[in-house]
Amino acid sequence: MKPLILITNDDGIAAPGLRMLIHIMRKLGRVVVVAPDKPQSGMGHAVTMQSPLRIHEILKEPEYEEYSCNGTPVDCVKLGQKVILKTNPDLIVSGINHGSNASVNVLYSGTMAAVLEAAMEDIPAIGFSLDDYSHQADFSHTTPFITAIAGNVLKNPLPAGVCLNVNIPAMNGEQIKGIKVVRQAKAFWDESFEERKDPHRRNYYWLQGVFTPKDNGTDTDEWALRNNYVSIVPVQIDLTAHQALDAIRSWNFDINSTG
Amino acid sequence: MKPLILITNDDGIAAPGLRMLIHIMRKLGRVVVVAPDKPQSGMGHAVTMQSPLRIHEILKEPEYEEYSCNGTPVDCVKLGQKVILKTNPDLIVSGINHGSNASVNVLYSGTMAAVLEAAMEDIPAIGFSLDDYSHQADFSHTTPFITAIAGNVLKNPLPAGVCLNVNIPAMNGEQIKGIKVVRQAKAFWDESFEERKDPHRRNYYWLQGVFTPKDNGTDTDEWALRNNYVSIVPVQIDLTAHQALDAIRSWNFDINSTG
Repeated sequence: MKPLILITNDDGIAAPGLRMLIHIMRKLGRVVVVAPDKPQSGMGHAVTMQSPLRIHEILKEPEYEEYSCNGTPVDCVKLGQKVILKTNPDLIVSGINHGSNASVNVLYSGTMAAVLEAAMEDIPAIGFSLDDYSHQADFSHTTPFITAIAGNVLKNPLPAGVCLNVNIPAMNGEQIKGIKVVRQAKAFWDESFEERKDPHRRNYYWLQGVFTPKDNGTDTDEWALRNNYVSIVPVQIDLTAHQALDAIRSWNFDINSTG
Repeated sequence: MKPLILITNDDGIAAPGLRMLIHIMRKLGRVVVVAPDKPQSGMGHAVTMQSPLRIHEILKEPEYEEYSCNGTPVDCVKLGQKVILKTNPDLIVSGINHGSNASVNVLYSGTMAAVLEAAMEDIPAIGFSLDDYSHQADFSHTTPFITAIAGNVLKNPLPAGVCLNVNIPAMNGEQIKGIKVVRQAKAFWDESFEERKDPHRRNYYWLQGVFTPKDNGTDTDEWALRNNYVSIVPVQIDLTAHQALDAIRSWNFDINSTG
């Protein structure tokens, strides 16, 4: 029996990156697509609790089904598992995202939220992103890397609770040098706001951010991308800063003296 | 000079939990509140990039200012820093959330997203949550704990990139036993969907989830809450599963053989 692969993304059902991922995955197994009916970028780990969800069947044929839904990428994973498949798939893949999800972007990313959701339930899962935000991005060079990485995950069990964040350099005319298994780079988005006035002379603001690295390591996903390597970061749900536990335990929590 | 404290939340400007946190923080410093104008629970690390943001001034007096905005908790932090304060505050606090953000809830939480955003820029930050979802929850027992923890953070520098996820047991008639500095418990939300039919006989779905622990440890935030302790988890932005790097490096990534 071919493996059962659930595909989602956060750029929505019509995104070229999703189409490329479907094309690649159909060579590896039976595929069910459940993707948002509109772009959901920057939604992070949002779930839809206040409004009802709807599923639209787009295509249903042997070994391939395609649905859209009005929710977030995390909603797509939950609906795919519980309502459409009624079982756990062998693999969940998300993407190919139009834009990098390396470094701290993993936290803002709907693509990676879908993957983290799968990891919480110990379902093997991979997020794929291309370091090119353009809708017309060239995805042709991604096929052998995505095929090799997904093939490995189908063969080798991932550690419990661990999923993969894969980022692929933009097509730049040079051959990609290979794959690096690396850690998440430290960075932040340095935001500014462009202030404008509406026709009623009231202010409004557009958020603008500049990605700002804080990491000189050569063992990071940012370094790999900048040096034309595909980056793989194994990602887990544990945000505990284990190294900080002892320092904070030494604080004085005498409630009576401070309250 | 009194410390400058920026307050936000994800339940919105009118939430009783926010009012309690403002009341407590005004005893510790100068306070600027920037909170969403409507509830933003479950928004995770969402940011508003596709639509303009607006700020509404509610109150401005010496040592106290209050604003609402039409964005997410992360937007509130960014607007507070860049547009309203035009400097970094000494402390960012978020909450008091109506409902626990212990365990994996840290990922879905707008309250904690605001705090993680601060940590990325090395601004000391704490998220406070009460293990009670009710709008009418009793917050009266939280004061000495929040005062003691915020006081410590103002005195003792947090490690770079580390913020705190504080969860407080619901008022249950018994005295809280103390504070535990612990790790994030493993768990997941086991979702189901209630299927209904609309008047046009089309299906729609309501998401329902049951929090499902996967952790027997007595050193976790879930254990602390269940045993009537306040939990503090030091949290960081690094999602890398460092322990999994070597196993994945041993995979065969021969692109030519698989592409």
